[in-house]
Parts: sequence; structure tokens; C-alpha cells
Amino acid sequence: MDLTPEQRAEIDALRAQRTETRRAVAPALEEILYEPIPVLDHGFIRVIDYMGDDAAIVQAARVSYGKGTKKAQSDAGLIAYLLRHRHTTPFEMCEIKYHVKLPIFVARQWIRHRTANVNEYSARYSILDREYYVPDPDQLGTQSRSNRQGRGAVLEGEEADHVLGLLRADAERCYTDYEVMLNEDSDGNKLDENRAGLARELARMNLTLNAYTQWYWKIDLHNLLHFLSLRADPHAQYEIRVYADAMVETLRHWLPITYEAFVNYRQGGLSLSAKGLAVVKRMLDGEAVTQETSAMSKREWRELMESLGREA
Amino acid sequence: MDLTPEQRAEIDALRAQRTETRRAVAPALEEILYEPIPVLDHGFIRVIDYMGDDAAIVQAARVSYGKGTKKAQSDAGLIAYLLRHRHTTPFEMCEIKYHVKLPIFVARQWIRHRTANVNEYSARYSILDREYYVPDPDQLGTQSRSNRQGRGAVLEGEEADHVLGLLRADAERCYTDYEVMLNEDSDGNKLDENRAGLARELARMNLTLNAYTQWYWKIDLHNLLHFLSLRADPHAQYEIRVYADAMVETLRHWLPITYEAFVNYRQGGLSLSAKGLAVVKRMLDGEAVTQETSAMSKREWRELMESLGREA
Amino acid sequence: MDLTPEQRAEIDALRAQRTETRRAVAPALEEILYEPIPVLDHGFIRVIDYMGDDAAIVQAARVSYGKGTKKAQSDAGLIAYLLRHRHTTPFEMCEIKYHVKLPIFVARQWIRHRTANVNEYSARYSILDREYYVPDPDQLGTQSRSNRQGRGAVLEGEEADHVLGLLRADAERCYTDYEVMLNEDSDGNKLDENRAGLARELARMNLTLNAYTQWYWKIDLHNLLHFLSLRADPHAQYEIRVYADAMVETLRHWLPITYEAFVNYRQGGLSLSAKGLAVVKRMLDGEAVTQETSAMSKREWRELMESLGREA
Amino acid sequence: MDLTPEQRAEIDALRAQRTETRRAVAPALEEILYEPIPVLDHGFIRVIDYMGDDAAIVQAARVSYGKGTKKAQSDAGLIAYLLRHRHTTPFEMCEIKYHVKLPIFVARQWIRHRTANVNEYSARYSILDREYYVPDPDQLGTQSRSNRQGRGAVLEGEEADHVLGLLRADAERCYTDYEVMLNEDSDGNKLDENRAGLARELARMNLTLNAYTQWYWKIDLHNLLHFLSLRADPHAQYEIRVYADAMVETLRHWLPITYEAFVNYRQGGLSLSAKGLAVVKRMLDGEAVTQETSAMSKREWRELMESLGREA
Repeated sequence: MDLTPEQRAEIDALRAQRTETRRAVAPALEEILYEPIPVLDHGFIRVIDYMGDDAAIVQAARVSYGKGTKKAQSDAGLIAYLLRHRHTTPFEMCEIKYHVKLPIFVARQWIRHRTANVNEYSARYSILDREYYVPDPDQLGTQSRSNRQGRGAVLEGEEADHVLGLLRADAERCYTDYEVMLNEDSDGNKLDENRAGLARELARMNLTLNAYTQWYWKIDLHNLLHFLSLRADPHAQYEIRVYADAMVETLRHWLPITYEAFVNYRQGGLSLSAKGLAVVKRMLDGEAVTQETSAMSKREWRELMESLGREA
Repeated sequence: MDLTPEQRAEIDALRAQRTETRRAVAPALEEILYEPIPVLDHGFIRVIDYMGDDAAIVQAARVSYGKGTKKAQSDAGLIAYLLRHRHTTPFEMCEIKYHVKLPIFVARQWIRHRTANVNEYSARYSILDREYYVPDPDQLGTQSRSNRQGRGAVLEGEEADHVLGLLRADAERCYTDYEVMLNEDSDGNKLDENRAGLARELARMNLTLNAYTQWYWKIDLHNLLHFLSLRADPHAQYEIRVYADAMVETLRHWLPITYEAFVNYRQGGLSLSAKGLAVVKRMLDGEAVTQETSAMSKREWRELMESLGREA
Repeated sequence: MDLTPEQRAEIDALRAQRTETRRAVAPALEEILYEPIPVLDHGFIRVIDYMGDDAAIVQAARVSYGKGTKKAQSDAGLIAYLLRHRHTTPFEMCEIKYHVKLPIFVARQWIRHRTANVNEYSARYSILDREYYVPDPDQLGTQSRSNRQGRGAVLEGEEADHVLGLLRADAERCYTDYEVMLNEDSDGNKLDENRAGLARELARMNLTLNAYTQWYWKIDLHNLLHFLSLRADPHAQYEIRVYADAMVETLRHWLPITYEAFVNYRQGGLSLSAKGLAVVKRMLDGEAVTQETSAMSKREWRELMESLGREA
Repeated sequence: MDLTPEQRAEIDALRAQRTETRRAVAPALEEILYEPIPVLDHGFIRVIDYMGDDAAIVQAARVSYGKGTKKAQSDAGLIAYLLRHRHTTPFEMCEIKYHVKLPIFVARQWIRHRTANVNEYSARYSILDREYYVPDPDQLGTQSRSNRQGRGAVLEGEEADHVLGLLRADAERCYTDYEVMLNEDSDGNKLDENRAGLARELARMNLTLNAYTQWYWKIDLHNLLHFLSLRADPHAQYEIRVYADAMVETLRHWLPITYEAFVNYRQGGLSLSAKGLAVVKRMLDGEAVTQETSAMSKREWRELMESLGREA
């Protein structure tokens, strides 16, 4: 992640401003406000703004005239109760806004979450920077054999070098040709006075999917927790998971009580089916249940035993 | 609108708090933060929190690292452009949260706007107050003859008195019987030690639709402007319009530049159909167009002439 | 549920129509199409239209040119997999439309699900019928002691009679006064030639919350399953649960494979928190875990033991 | 647009199926159901399913037990009224599902409309085909001078040839290297037995943004009309406009009455601001208004005069 001196100065100017407000303030989040948190080789997330704190959830749940409850302990108890019982509306009363820089193929996965507000940098209007994602060698996974949409062991030796070389060369060439078509570089300098230059809305199609884009992304807390429970998860693709992990960290700064409840009720939990629950009950009664007697498919049985930390 | 001393004290405590923040602050909105603005006979709106200011719209539109543009004038120009051309996403980057007290029949109309977050006071869980809406005599409209969903002239004399008397008596009796069924008053005192009391989730069905409810309601600026363009409009029912009017006033405090653009591009404008546009063009060319030569229905022709301030 | 002869004839006319289509057809749902299924004392649900069948889910999941898979068995396996792993988008590809008649206080709870399309009968425009909900005596629950938003034992004897009497009398009187204010009955006959009549949009506020309203309600399958998992559940209020139960039955007619997966993965399952999962693992290892050693609150411990069918 | 024989056969099988239904049927849309309509060089749209017809809008608006009105003429009048006055909920009662094949950069613009259901072909799971968009020479616009997000004159001669050559060569090379990294071709044949192959979720990042993707896309009629009013519009980028134009054509087959109203009230109309309306009124009164006396900016004045077909 490389900021230009102008970008750094703009961020510093925002960080230097201090104004009084009557609103709820989250002190630990104020500490990192506007500051880019690096993700992948050229990406980042920055918290731009937020609304509410842990007490605001309680305040909304009670539709109260004042703050939440008087005691921090009862706030924690109520927040845990609300999250456990999926009373979602009080969590919708907090909001957060990020500035995110991310590869286009990650952006395409991310945008599938429709319950957020998005304003993306327009390549119809502006020229993208010469920045593209190349994985770390230790992230160069092979196609998984067990999971058709996952990765297995890491590529090694010559094959890894070859792949990295292709990714770099193709992205470089496509970007260079993008400038040639535009007849302009990213600073707006014309390359050849005798050429007209292709429209930006067309030239952009020559970029590769690892090119970086940027957007402002704003979401309420309920939908953020849902996004994080799916994306800050081992099943998520590494390249989006690292963004989600960085956002979980901003959640911890913003709403420490909600963060604890999220870790307990969303991240570390397990969802049992009716058949799975029946199996657990029989096992607790001392029965030696097997896949054959479980009424579950082999795959589900394996998944359940793994989740329970038992041999399948 | 009557606040209890406890409610007044809670509000004052919130208004007295002052904390430093690095976030964008809207000074004129801070002035009225948390303070109830009376609407109808017992209702109110209160701004509880907000995110962003006029510059935040520009900042999002530019996906910028710093604030919006340097000059207020260019911010105004860009905001007008965005609103005129319906570039909606930058407006979604601001958010506002209200506490609203309103009659249930108004709440039912209001909730049809699905693009907001709502947390309503639960009558399954708590007991509603003895408060119900009775219109001012000058709002007691008769059924409109021209518009099947509007009001005409105001009821007068005995009929008006009779209606007001019925509204009061029925709401009172229904509320009293609600307490009898609950076997509890709104302070939680048991009425009769020998009775069990009906569940709150059932007893509430005896209330009339003019009983007051409350909710926290949070919405982004784009959807707020849409709500206001429909509800702060002469076609909206008076009882919801007065809430929308009060919210337009909070908009003026919050985002003065956006407010001006809203008044120009949403509130005072006119949407011409293809046929309507053709008529206007012919009239501007000096042709004496009539309904018969307009290709429009009588009703549309009348509506168009009225909007243009001409005789039909 | 009482249909007028005209309504019965309109429904019969729709049921008599038969047209050829190239679209996917769900034969068992066609059997009950348009036919009202009674709910509560005067309510109903009717399936008005639907899009897709079980194979359409598979077809969308594969983004295929033809139907789903060739074999019913592999369709079932894929649908179970998709539901288990919360791959929600293929389920959004089916849609269903209902006509529902329901008490207003139930409608207010129902409408909180924002991810549906709704068109409600307008009491600004039309006059509601003299129909209101009165619970069966065996549904007249007292306020629950353990759950602040639930019911306990059933009211008995005189108190029950008194409550039922109040509910009936208040609803009757409010409706009668509604007609008086309107100066019109529900057939549109003027009551008194010398009075003007209050506007409909105002008079409706005199009705009680157990008055019946109606709407068309359309939702995609993913959101329907979410609605049903919350409302066809013992924690939901009885008066909305009976509607959800009737809709689960229409689901069974529409999509038999998805219905089976829904029962297994949504209705009968259990969601364990991280702490709850840790407890289950220790118990499976033979440890005698108690609330004190569980790191759970008393309430959560009790809930967990109950779900596992064990003594707390 | 090239279908494989297998795809053609699958489509023909679907088109050959005929089943009786009690649902509303749109005969002209049935004619083209499932059949791909070519768009751009390799793309298409296909209507996969639909719910409702023109009468269903009326039926929902009336919350009726039977069909819409008896007479086609009054249906048309009501639909025009509803669209003119932005009564949106009855239009939400119809739904349509498309299968679309489109370049990724178009898909990125398209997906910004969040009010639809989408199921995209997964390049984490499967291998994309060797298909990419190259514009027709007469679509090779230069960057517009007047509109920063549009195109001007068409590139000519050598520059055009050079651009087309670069687009082709870069897309080809990136695709070839995609296969090399995967160590697999799109038929699933391994290229080199001694290499492991990169995971699909990674290799896809090497593709260019003009590669084709596919999705199932389902939307209600209200949101479809909104999408079409923005995208079947001269201001939209050509590459998405051709898809929208093809969809307008399917709308005409599906709902002929709504189509007429859409053309009149959405496509051919004009939205006047308060200032614009004031100018029109003054001009109709015979005043010779100029930009200077209009209270409008030069840009807005120019836009208004253009819309009214008058010299600025």
C-alpha cells in the first residue's frame, strides 16, 4: 500500500481535525479513524465514519429517551441476548463507513452482499492506477481435490515461479496497452499528439481482474456482522478473508461488547440440523452412533464429526 | 407532547454531553440534537444521531482520501448535478436516526417505506401509554369528491362535535378496557389481586388505531429524500405530512446545500410524460393546443394545465 | 372465513381457467391455487401465483441452459447442500404470491419483514368490512412470568368471559361509530342525507387493532424460508404462527424437496454458540459439566440443557 | 452468440414442454420463452420464467378475489394512472427471470442495481469459456470532450485497427495463460501431467474485463422499469444499453399495456426542476426568457433548452 504525499497529507489533515459533538463517540475507533490499514500487496481499508456505540444498541432496543442502561454489565447481557435470539433490528441502528482498495475479482465477490451502500471509483470517468494484485508465494494454492471451490497445497518451485511471472507480465502488458488505447497515462499526460485516444469506458475492458479498484462502502452493524460471519471464515477465499479479518479488528475498536458476543455466537458456533441434533442427543445418552445409524449422508456425518472434534 | 420529568432529565443529560470527535460534524444539527420537535397533539420527532455532512457527499462521489472539494461553491455545484442526474449512491453515504412518536395508523403508512431501519416499542413486551390522536377541528375533512383518497371541506357544527366526541370516547373506553384485560395500569400496578390478567400480546388488539406508538427510525439520505418527496407533499395525508415537514426542517439544519437542491429538484418540480412534453413544445411554438388535440385523457390534460398554471 | 357469493364466483372462475405454458409447473400447488385456506376466525391465505419448482433451484445454481439435473436424487442432494451451507441465491430464484386476510395487529408484526412486496387494501380509499378477530377461549393466555413477551396459562371462568365480552363490545362499537363518522355503511349506502361524512383516511383511526385487513404479499423462496423459520416457530405469537403454519403447508405442495430440507436444516435444528459447542464436546468426552464450569450464564445454560433434552 | 449442440438441445427440450396451468399466462412471451436473443458479439438474454400479466397488476392494486377489471380499456387507464402517480407496489407483483451472458465490465455496472436476485456462474468452481467482447469498429468511440463519462467520434484508420488488435491479443494471451496456470482447458483436460495447476479461484484473476460471464437475474416489474429507464437510455454506455433494449422488447411481449405506459411516462418524458418549471411558465406567458434571467446555471439552461427543442 503506497500513498502519494498528497494522499498522506489529506489523511493527516482529517486526522488533525477535532470538533465537539453531542453524539455517541467510540474512543478507540477515533484513534484509528481515516488511517489506512494495509491488506494484500496494495490494498487497504480505512474507517471514514461511524454512527453509534454499544450503548446505542441498547438505547434502540429500549426505544429510550436517554442512553442505554446505567450499567455496563446489563448492556453486555442485553446485547448477548439480542444476538443469541437474532433480534436484529437494534443492531441495524449502528452504521459504519469504509474506504476500501481491493482487486476487482475480490470486489466482484464482495458486491454480492446487496445490503450496503457503495460508491465505486469510476473507470468511465477516471483512469485507474497501475496497480494489480500478485499473491504471496505461500498463497499460491492448487485446486483443492475435496472442495471444488477451494485451494489445496501450495504450488512450488518452477511452476510457482512460472505462474507468478505470467500474472505479472499479463497485468503489466494489459495496463500498458490500456494507456496506449487511452493515449494517456494515469497522470493525464497525452502520449501521442496525433492520436485521439479511446474512450475510458471502453479502454477499461482491457484490464485484468487483479487490477485494484476502490470504493466507499457503508453498512449497518447487523449486515456487517452477517458479512463478517461469512467472509472472516475459513471457507471464504483468502483474498477476501484478509479484508474481513481487518474489519473484525475495527469492530473490536468500535464496539467491544458486541465484538465479544459476535465471537461467541457467530464465529465459533455450530449450526446443528434436526438430524444432527438427534445424533448428539443419542451420543450424550451413551449410544455409539455410526453414520449408518445416523440417518445422515456420509458427507454430512463427516462434517458433523469434524465439528464435534471426533473421529468420523 | 408531554414528557415526564424523567424523560426530560434523560434528554438533558444527553444534550449536556460534549465529546471531541474527528468525524464530520453538522453544527446546526448539533444544536437541536435529542430535542423533541412536537408534531400533532402528542407526537414528536427527535434527531438521535447522524453521519456525514454536505462535504461527505462530495467526498464519496470522488472516492477521495480527504474532504470534499476545497470550495463550498464547487460542492454546491456537484451536489446539484448529482441530484439532477439521479446519481444516487453519494447520497446514500449520509445517514440519520430519529426517535418518532406517532399514531399507529400513521405508522402503518410510514412503514411501507422499506428502505429504513426500524425498532418499534413492543406492545408484546410493554404497556402502551394512554395517548391517542384526536384531530384539530380544522383538520376534520370530509371525504373528497374528486379524489377517492383525499379530504374535501371541513366538517362543521354539530357533526364535527359528534365526530370528535366519538373519537375521544371510543379511544378512552378501549384503553380503559385494555388495562382491565391486562389487570395492570401503565405504571405496572395490578388492578385486582384475584385476576390473572391477559397477555400483553393479546390485550393490545383492543387499542384503536389512533393510539400512539414510538420507534427509532434510521435511513440514508437518498432514501430520506425519496420519503420526503412523497410525504412532504400536498397529496400526502395531513397526519404524515406534518412529520415529513418537521423532518425537512431537520434536513435544512443538517445539510444546507443538499436541502436547497432538494427544494429545487424534488419538491417544486414537475415530471412531464412524453405526451405532456409534446404538448409543451407545441404551445411554446405558439400552437393553441386543446385536450382534444393533445392525445391526453381529460384527467391528464387537467392535471397538466394545473401544473403549468393555465386554464384547462 | 366467509366469502360472499361474488367472491366465491370470482375464485371459481380463476380456478376453472386452464392454459398451456412452457414454464415449470408445480402440480400439487396448482391443485390448491386461488383457494382460500382458513386461518383464525375470519382470515385466510390464498396462493395467487408462483414461479419455479424444485428443479428451478438446481437450474439457477448451475446457471444452466436446460432443466436442473437429470435425476431427482441428485437434485435433492444439491438442494440439501445449498440450504446447509447457506448458499442463498439459488433459492431466491423461486417466487410465490399470496392473498392474505389478517388482523391489523398481526399485519403490523408481519410487515417488519421488509424483503417482500406488499399491496394492502387501502382504508383511505375503501371502507373496511365489519370483521374483527376474537381469540378462541383456549388461546386466551395470561401474561407469561418467565418470558416477558409470551403467554402462560389460559384464562378461565368469569375473567375469560369478561375479556371476550370486552373485545367483542369494543370492536363492535368502534366499527359502528366508524360507519357513523363516515356516514356510510360498508356497502356504500349513505346513513343520513343531511350529514357530509368524515374522510375515510380519518375515520379509519377509530377501528381497533383486531379489525381485519387484506393484502397481496409476494416473496422469494429464500426470504420465505427465513420468514417461516421465525414465524412457524413456538416462540412466535400464536396469531401469526397459524398463518406461517398454513404457508409451510403450501410450501410442501409447491416444492417437496425443499420442504424436506427446510424441516431438517431450519425448523428442527439448534444453533450452538462457541461456549455451547465447547460444553457439548466436553460432555461427549464424558465430563460432568455444570453451569458453574460451563462459562455460560444461568439462562443460557438452562436453554442449552433444554435444547439437548437434559436436566439443567 | 454460439450455442453448443448440447445447449441447443437443452433449450429445445424446454421449449417443447407444454403443461396446463391455472396461472396467468402471457401468450406472446411464451412464444420466445427460453430462446436466446443475441446481444453484442457473444452475449444474449433469455427469458427463463415470469409471473403475472397486465391484469395481475390491476388485480393486486384492487386486492381482488378475481381477475383485474372486466374491460381491457379500464385496465389500461388504471395502469397508466398507477405509473403516472408512482404507485409502485402493484408493479412489484409481477416478476421476470432472465439468463444473461455478458462481458464482466458490463456485469460490474449492471450489478449496481441491488434490487434483483442474481446467481452468477462461479469461476471459483468452474472454468470460463474462451470468449471475450471486442467492439464493432463503429462503436470504437473516443473519449468525449463535453461529457467526462461518455464517448465522442469514432476512432478511424490505423488507430482503430491498432486498438482492436490490442484488445484481441491481450484477451487471447490472458486466456491462454489462464489455462496454463490452471493446467487444464475449458473441457477439463489436463495440459501437463507433471504440474499441479493453480486453484480456479486464483487463476481467474488473470482474465481481462471483457471476458464473458453468465448469470440468472430475476427482478420484479417495478425495479425492472427503473433499470430500463436508466439503461435503455442514450446516456447509458452502449454495451449495457443493448441489453436493456433487448429487455424492453421482452417487456413488450410480456405486458403490452404496461409497455405503452412505460414509453409514455418513463422513456420519453422530462423532469423539470422548480426553476425549470418557472422558466416554462414564463415562456408560455410570452416572456423571452434568457439564461441570465432564468436563475439557472449555463449548463442547466442548455440542457433545458435542448430538452424543449429550442435554441439555447
